[in-house]
Amino acid sequence: MAVYTQVPAETLAAFLQRFDVGELVSAKGIAEGVENSNYLVETTGGRFILTLYEKRVAANDLPFFMALLDHLADQGQPVPPAIPDRKGREIHELCDRPACLIKFLPGVSVSHPTPAQARSAGAAMGGMHDALTDFGRDRHNSMGVESWKPLFQKCGDDLDRIRPGLHAEAAAMVEEVLSGWPAADALPRAAIHADLFPDNVLMLGDTVTGLIDFYFACTDFRAYDLAVMHTAWAFDASGETLHANIGNALLDGYRSRFALSEAEREALPLLARGACLRFFLSRAWDWLNTPADALVTRKDPIAYLNRYHRYAAANPFA
Amino acid sequence: MAVYTQVPAETLAAFLQRFDVGELVSAKGIAEGVENSNYLVETTGGRFILTLYEKRVAANDLPFFMALLDHLADQGQPVPPAIPDRKGREIHELCDRPACLIKFLPGVSVSHPTPAQARSAGAAMGGMHDALTDFGRDRHNSMGVESWKPLFQKCGDDLDRIRPGLHAEAAAMVEEVLSGWPAADALPRAAIHADLFPDNVLMLGDTVTGLIDFYFACTDFRAYDLAVMHTAWAFDASGETLHANIGNALLDGYRSRFALSEAEREALPLLARGACLRFFLSRAWDWLNTPADALVTRKDPIAYLNRYHRYAAANPFA
Repeated sequence: MAVYTQVPAETLAAFLQRFDVGELVSAKGIAEGVENSNYLVETTGGRFILTLYEKRVAANDLPFFMALLDHLADQGQPVPPAIPDRKGREIHELCDRPACLIKFLPGVSVSHPTPAQARSAGAAMGGMHDALTDFGRDRHNSMGVESWKPLFQKCGDDLDRIRPGLHAEAAAMVEEVLSGWPAADALPRAAIHADLFPDNVLMLGDTVTGLIDFYFACTDFRAYDLAVMHTAWAFDASGETLHANIGNALLDGYRSRFALSEAEREALPLLARGACLRFFLSRAWDWLNTPADALVTRKDPIAYLNRYHRYAAANPFA
Repeated sequence: MAVYTQVPAETLAAFLQRFDVGELVSAKGIAEGVENSNYLVETTGGRFILTLYEKRVAANDLPFFMALLDHLADQGQPVPPAIPDRKGREIHELCDRPACLIKFLPGVSVSHPTPAQARSAGAAMGGMHDALTDFGRDRHNSMGVESWKPLFQKCGDDLDRIRPGLHAEAAAMVEEVLSGWPAADALPRAAIHADLFPDNVLMLGDTVTGLIDFYFACTDFRAYDLAVMHTAWAFDASGETLHANIGNALLDGYRSRFALSEAEREALPLLARGACLRFFLSRAWDWLNTPADALVTRKDPIAYLNRYHRYAAANPFA
C-alpha cells in the first residue's frame, strides 16, 4: 500500500522505449495492491499500470500470473492483460525488481456493495471460473490449508497479546477446520483468484469493469474461491453482521455463470470457516509483526474471528 | 507520501456531485506531495487531483494557497487551478478533512535535470514571480529564518545521534546564517513557492507543464525562492557535487523572465546557505522523530549539510 521502489522519470521513459506504447506523459506512484510498487503511467499511446514486484511476490511465480491474465483476457474476461514489449516479453526487470506493464482499467472498488453489485461480482467470478476450466497451469496455494497450522504455531502465545485467550480460541479453530477439511480430490480443483475482496473488483455502477490483483492466484478447490469472496463481501467491516442479501446475491450471480455442485454447496460452510481462519491468521501475524506507528494499515484480525463464529453459528448457504 | 485517509468510492461519487465534472470513472490513491492524502480522480468530464489536507497543512492557510493558484492560473502560469463547485466554493470538507479538487496536469518530475530542463524550470520560476508582483495576499513563512534557531534548539544534543559533532557544527551554521541574514526590508519580498524542488516541477521533455505543491508558499525574500531552487537542482543527491552548469542554467532561465537586482545577486550565497540550513534542520528533526522502519522515506539531513559547506567554500553565483 505504498511505493517501495522509486523509479526515476528518466529510467521509466527509457524502459517504455522497449514497448510500442508511445512517449511518457505522466507517472504517479499509486497506493494499491499487495506489497508491490505500482505506478499509474500515461503515455501518448494509452494508460497502464506498471508493477514492480517486491519481496512478497516471488519472481518465479510471475509466469503463472501473467499466463493467467493472458488466458482470461483472451477469453474476454474483464482482467487487465499484460503488455508485451516489442520482442513479445511480458516480464521485465526495472530498478532491480521484476516488473510488468499491464493495461489500465477504469472503475472503482466499492466499499458498501449493493445486492446488484454483489450479483455482478459473483457473476464475474463465475465467468472467470468458466474461462479457467481449460487453463492448464498449476500453482501451489502458499496460503492454503497446509499453511494454517504452521502459521498458527508461528504466531504462538503472542496471539494472547492481541486479545487474552485468543491462542486457545485459534487452536480450536485450527483443529475444527483441519479435521473437517475435504480431501484433495473431494471437490473440483482449478485455478482460483483466492483474494477476490471488493478492493480487487473494479466497477462502474453495477457493472464489473475489472478483476485485479491476481497475486494470490493458485490451484485450490474452486468453491474455496467463492467462500473467500463470501467472507469478504457479505459482512460489515467488524465481521459481526452478516448481510444475507449480499451473500445470496453473490451466490445467485455466480450460479448464473457457472454451476455449483451439491458437494460444493454442502462444503461451503466449512470452506468459509477455512477462509476466515486463513485471513485471521495472516492478519494476526501481520498485526504482531507491524509496528503500531507504521504507515501500513494493520487489518484487524478480530474482524475475521467474528466472521468465523458467525459461520459456525448458522449456515448462510443453506 | 502515503494515503492517510481512505475515501470510500461511494463517498467520493457523492462528493463529486457537488461539481460539474460528470460521473466518477476511476480513483487511485497516489503517493505524492507533503503529508496529505491525494487521489488521482477520473470522471466523465476530465482528470483531477483530490487532496485531503492532513495535520501538516493548516486549514486556515488554504484560502491563501487557493488564491495563489487561482491568481497564477488566471495569468496563464502552468499551475493546476482549483475546481470550484456549482456554488463557486473551492475548499470543501470530505471524510472530516479539508479537501480541494484541482486540475490534473500532465508531465513528470525529472530526477537528473539537463541544463535545458534547468533553464526551463528557472524561467518558470521567473514567470511565476512576474505573475505574483500584483498578488496582494500575505502568509508568514512558518519555516523561515525566525524558525531556524528554535528548531535547532528543539533538535538539541540529539543531533549528535545522527553524526558525532553535528550539534556543534549546526550551532555554527545557525550563528553564521542568522548574523548575516538581510534585514526584512533589505531585499524585495513577495509571495514565493519556497519548495520548488524537481519533484514539484512537471515537465514534458524540456517544457515545464506544471508547478505543483504550493503548500509551503509564503511571503519572503523573492531571491530566497531562487536560492532554495538552486540548492535543490544544482547538486547530486549526496550534496557533495555542485553541477555549475545546472545552477547557471537555472539563473539564466530565471533572468530571462524576471530581473534579479544587484543586491539580490549579492545576497544569493547567504540565502542559499539559509536554505541549506532550513532543509538540514527540518530533515534532521524528521530523522530524529521517524522510526527507521517506517514506510516514509527519511531524507538524509547530511546531504544538506554538504551543500551548506559547498556554498561556504565558494560562490557559485559570482
